[in-house]
Amino acid sequence: KKRFNIALLPGDGIGPEVISVAKNVLQQAGSLEGLEFNFQEMPVGGAALDLVGVPLPEESFAAAKQSDAILLGAIGGYKWDNNEKHLRPEMALFYLRRDLKVFANLRPATVLPQLVDASTLKREVAEGVDMMIVRELTGGIYFGEPRGIKTNENGEEVGFNTEFYAAHEIDRIARVAFETARKRRGKLCSVDKANVLDASILWRRRVTALASEYPDVELTHMYVDNAAMQLIRDPKQFDTIVTNNIFGDILSDEASMITGSIGMLPSASLGVSGPGLFEPIHGSAPDIAGQDKANPLATVLSAAMLLKYGLGEEKAAKRIEDAVLDTLNKGFRTGDIYSPGNKLVGCKEMGEEVLKSV
Amino acid sequence: KKRFNIALLPGDGIGPEVISVAKNVLQQAGSLEGLEFNFQEMPVGGAALDLVGVPLPEESFAAAKQSDAILLGAIGGYKWDNNEKHLRPEMALFYLRRDLKVFANLRPATVLPQLVDASTLKREVAEGVDMMIVRELTGGIYFGEPRGIKTNENGEEVGFNTEFYAAHEIDRIARVAFETARKRRGKLCSVDKANVLDASILWRRRVTALASEYPDVELTHMYVDNAAMQLIRDPKQFDTIVTNNIFGDILSDEASMITGSIGMLPSASLGVSGPGLFEPIHGSAPDIAGQDKANPLATVLSAAMLLKYGLGEEKAAKRIEDAVLDTLNKGFRTGDIYSPGNKLVGCKEMGEEVLKSV
Ligand SMILES: CC(C)[C@H](C(=O)O)[C@@H](O)C(=O)O
Ligand SMILES: CC(C)[C@H](C(=O)O)[C@@H](O)C(=O)O
Repeated sequence: KKRFNIALLPGDGIGPEVISVAKNVLQQAGSLEGLEFNFQEMPVGGAALDLVGVPLPEESFAAAKQSDAILLGAIGGYKWDNNEKHLRPEMALFYLRRDLKVFANLRPATVLPQLVDASTLKREVAEGVDMMIVRELTGGIYFGEPRGIKTNENGEEVGFNTEFYAAHEIDRIARVAFETARKRRGKLCSVDKANVLDASILWRRRVTALASEYPDVELTHMYVDNAAMQLIRDPKQFDTIVTNNIFGDILSDEASMITGSIGMLPSASLGVSGPGLFEPIHGSAPDIAGQDKANPLATVLSAAMLLKYGLGEEKAAKRIEDAVLDTLNKGFRTGDIYSPGNKLVGCKEMGEEVLKSV
Repeated sequence: KKRFNIALLPGDGIGPEVISVAKNVLQQAGSLEGLEFNFQEMPVGGAALDLVGVPLPEESFAAAKQSDAILLGAIGGYKWDNNEKHLRPEMALFYLRRDLKVFANLRPATVLPQLVDASTLKREVAEGVDMMIVRELTGGIYFGEPRGIKTNENGEEVGFNTEFYAAHEIDRIARVAFETARKRRGKLCSVDKANVLDASILWRRRVTALASEYPDVELTHMYVDNAAMQLIRDPKQFDTIVTNNIFGDILSDEASMITGSIGMLPSASLGVSGPGLFEPIHGSAPDIAGQDKANPLATVLSAAMLLKYGLGEEKAAKRIEDAVLDTLNKGFRTGDIYSPGNKLVGCKEMGEEVLKSV
């Protein structure tokens, strides 16, 4: 039997509910494939702030760092919205990303045939959308220095941040993207703002230079403003997208909403070595927390990504993906993806139904 | 008779065609309201590069600067896509914005009842969308220093830009936005990334501080990634949006595509004093240039904004807006907004039809 250590970081809001479902599904799928998991659950985000006064306690980080893979629920909530910056729940995410060095954030945006009508886009536009956004996650304006707010020589306050990319940061995320595109439909669109930003000019130059190593991948470039439009006009044109941290933040949220089922979308954050970080794309949804209304499928599918990208256990991953499709085919729906004619269930019941199909 | 000097900057691609239509409409609407225009047409962008080797010749800038208002067509084209940065057509736009100090870019995104079906969003989502995006246009990461590409101490290339806002830059764009919201439905949503960027923290603080001067306006804040989602989920929730230069670039393009009629959307760029710059939101569309296929209505409606915001001539502006609606009601459509049952016309014929209704 293979054994793996999994760090569970439930976090805030609906985080604990969806993690509890995903944990059971992961265990079941694993045991059917001869995998044994040792789960260690640790507080992060607001939960950690309430317990010990910091968003990412050392023990939580250590457990994550020493694990084979990390499954995270969601972070944040109204309660901590007015905290000072370094005491905000979201800081846990930054520290985790930065200190685990998970520079490659994979965010699929797929429209399942069963859920086409959940999109606000017309059926013929949404149908068949299947893209992967590869977002750079540990660089750019999120981490660039100098940054801050200060008073200038005229006594006026100024705020500033630095968009910064070194060649090697661009190269390594571009390679992940080319490899990803190669395993998909072989099309990579690099999104930048090279008509305005110097950092984007370097980005485009480096990505272009790597293309010759991937002759089987068709590389195109698009400005970010155009990409924001094209995602709405004709999302099916995209296969794999690669972009910087801030553009990736914006475009991946836009793309996920296009699918109409943000409660369905997983993500993976990977580094060169060490554990990957797997989490649903959605937030902590404090308004429905504790009411058994959350859709656990994004976290369940994140567990599938964990198996596939984190542990290399494709078979177990496939079990979970198939179980989710099966459950949808049987008509089970949480509120966020419900449409008349289906069976409305809560978070727990959805979890039980998936378990039956694993 | 009142007289005004209007600088016409047709630019590239479909620019000359749409400007020629808009000029006639402007003249007609003006003369019916006792206004006389003295038009001066000058090259900018690729057209200027071809003529004199720079994107914004001094004479063109001088004519623009000395005018009462500027009407611009579109800038750019494949032909100049590989030019070095300072010889790119788009530089004309930067210089114009910066040197005319037009810091406030107003970009309406409206779904006309006549054109609801042109949107890729479902009818019930698109119907009734009517928002105004107020984009900061002369600051932020577009102009911030330091910027560049250089080789660092390890011999590695790095690219960087600076997102920078001084308090007064935030205050003046926020005031324009509050005033705009006040004349509309009284709702202002400020979009930032204050959970990550210091510049956004200052932005949010300054905007919030001004709110007490506008008690009739309801101010909310939204993170840019969420805004990119909400624009697709439920665009009707927005009335007026205010945001920085780069977020405004992305979100206004997204919003315009939501309307499905980017060929219909005008924009205004205004400073404290001096002439405003009015232009359609769409680009130069080199693929259909010179074929009499372009939709001139975005430029015609930009002429209406010129009358209203640039010259304070609301009556003449209203004439143009009404004439456009009238022409649409009669069923005239260019290719980009055509749907069966309507009358397909070219750029010129569309212009003639609008003229009849002015
Ligand atoms: C919570 C926030 C800081 C975070 C980000 O901007 O990266 C989130 O939006 C995300 O995309 O994971
Ligand atoms: C052409 C480009 C430099 C410009 C910008 O980014 O501002 C355009 O996208 C716009 O929005 O007017």
